[in-house]
Amino acid sequence: VKRVINTTDEETRRQINQILMFPDESAGCLMTIEYADLHSGISVEEAIKKVRRISPERESIETLFITDHERHLVGTLNIRDLLAAKDSTMIGEIMDANVISVHTHENQAEVADKFKKYDFFMMPVVDNEDRLVGMITIDDIIDVIEEETTEDIYKMAAMQPIEDSYMQTGVLTLARKRFAWLAILMISATFTGLIIEKFQSALAVNVLLATFIPMLMDTSGNAGSQSAVSVIRATVLDEIAFKDTFKVIWKEFRISMITGLGVSLLNFIRVYVMYKSMPIACVVSITLFFSVVAAKIVGCTLPLIATKLKLDPAIMASPLITTIVDAVALLVYFNIAALILPGI
Amino acid sequence: VKRVINTTDEETRRQINQILMFPDESAGCLMTIEYADLHSGISVEEAIKKVRRISPERESIETLFITDHERHLVGTLNIRDLLAAKDSTMIGEIMDANVISVHTHENQAEVADKFKKYDFFMMPVVDNEDRLVGMITIDDIIDVIEEETTEDIYKMAAMQPIEDSYMQTGVLTLARKRFAWLAILMISATFTGLIIEKFQSALAVNVLLATFIPMLMDTSGNAGSQSAVSVIRATVLDEIAFKDTFKVIWKEFRISMITGLGVSLLNFIRVYVMYKSMPIACVVSITLFFSVVAAKIVGCTLPLIATKLKLDPAIMASPLITTIVDAVALLVYFNIAALILPGI
Repeated sequence: VKRVINTTDEETRRQINQILMFPDESAGCLMTIEYADLHSGISVEEAIKKVRRISPERESIETLFITDHERHLVGTLNIRDLLAAKDSTMIGEIMDANVISVHTHENQAEVADKFKKYDFFMMPVVDNEDRLVGMITIDDIIDVIEEETTEDIYKMAAMQPIEDSYMQTGVLTLARKRFAWLAILMISATFTGLIIEKFQSALAVNVLLATFIPMLMDTSGNAGSQSAVSVIRATVLDEIAFKDTFKVIWKEFRISMITGLGVSLLNFIRVYVMYKSMPIACVVSITLFFSVVAAKIVGCTLPLIATKLKLDPAIMASPLITTIVDAVALLVYFNIAALILPGI
Repeated sequence: VKRVINTTDEETRRQINQILMFPDESAGCLMTIEYADLHSGISVEEAIKKVRRISPERESIETLFITDHERHLVGTLNIRDLLAAKDSTMIGEIMDANVISVHTHENQAEVADKFKKYDFFMMPVVDNEDRLVGMITIDDIIDVIEEETTEDIYKMAAMQPIEDSYMQTGVLTLARKRFAWLAILMISATFTGLIIEKFQSALAVNVLLATFIPMLMDTSGNAGSQSAVSVIRATVLDEIAFKDTFKVIWKEFRISMITGLGVSLLNFIRVYVMYKSMPIACVVSITLFFSVVAAKIVGCTLPLIATKLKLDPAIMASPLITTIVDAVALLVYFNIAALILPGI
């Protein structure tokens, strides 16, 4: 809906005001009232005449909406099928009575899902009494899809979504949208610190152990994010749901065995070459393997649980999972070190 | 294009084979040949008759494509404008000669951008000689947009994109798509480890310093990702380009001052309450402030440089930036510790 209506009459203006009263993010806010409607009781010949008369003021006539005497939506008709029909046929006979419509108060994300599902170019909007009040065109849905995706991406990177574009949003607003998660994750990373504090004596015995902490934390964090983001994206695209939890865990378990073994072997060679210590190379590589496996299981499970609890899975994404997985990696690290290294 | 063509004649089948020969991810692969075309030299009356005759075999007749004698695309005409015109008018007079078309070999992402820009429901596809060969409908473009976004999100989480859905892709393929980045980032995290190794003596003097490493690394990493992902998304949505680099850096600098000061103060209180040591609280909080500022500057700059170098900015996202930012945070940490704490 990009055209600006300059020459609106009283009636149209009243209807626009109605549109403005719909809640944010609702179908009502997206709709245009420049739809083409036909009465079900007229003939194809009359219908074509009416369409030709009203065409100039309509945004699109690809789909015609068929109504009864009380303006209830009773069917839709593609302009293609109208033109292909014989002049004497009645509209009620050729219309598709299997109407897919959206409600004025329906959420825009749900509307976008219906568009994706049915491959329509436009969809009728009805009120509480099933009366036709407008239509939504697919070009506006593309904007909704882009906005929803941007919101998800923002959440995955630990930010609250912004309403306007990046450049149009002020510094204070952007700072506010980012601060809360930054602070929450800072506080939660404290627990990871407490694990190190608990194992201070181990570190004092072998300070070299501290050298591997960044690599262990980063690799497990990345491994966990990979799983989390894959599962979140698949959930958003309706490829998986909560009932697939065990299938997903089994899949991620096998992936984590392969990738964990791979990075673990690489790491063993690297550490042994650099430090010439078999025990240190073993401790670090065994930890890496178990951390990657644990990270991927945690990473794929949390978003699915979030879905089940009707929470937004994107909130569960990378940063939060990284924080959890960091703690797991360090616990595994110091316990394996205590098992293998002497004097810890 | 969801309908399956059961009753294709020889000619149609030949044309479908042509479509199959277009390169992957090209406009040619997306197009349908069920478009509605009209000759520019006929009258509105004749045109409507032809449209009514050919309608049943067309996917959509919302936009009619106007050609000359050599099948060159010379204009487009909305069905609405055709029906609104007088019977005697010639098509050439009412058509829109300002044709926006895509080329068979054009990349699907570019096609999607054109759809977003012009708000069309369908677009003609032409060959090297500007001859009409097909059309692309917007419902297929939505799938392209979803695929492109999924690719970006995968890259941002350090994975190579997969072609099929998550559930349809095998464990081995998924492991392969994730392994390379996991290994690269593991090796690069080694440099962060080397910084700790270099400051081993400082750690030996004050083992408590190790306790704050996870929090400092995670918070800077998150701060950097926030900036990187914001800039990447804004680049994808064409809101910013390389020429905006200084504006973006100035914006991120101010955001980082505010958020950095906020988390730094919170952290000061937390550390002082937990450890009752003013020097430790100062070292950790000052480091946190400078790390957040540095992380946000690095985070917003790298994706813009990637764009300039014609690299994919999504590749520059969170994990790679986290690795770089980790190193910066640790360097700042140990240097400030050496300045403030006695005996290091």
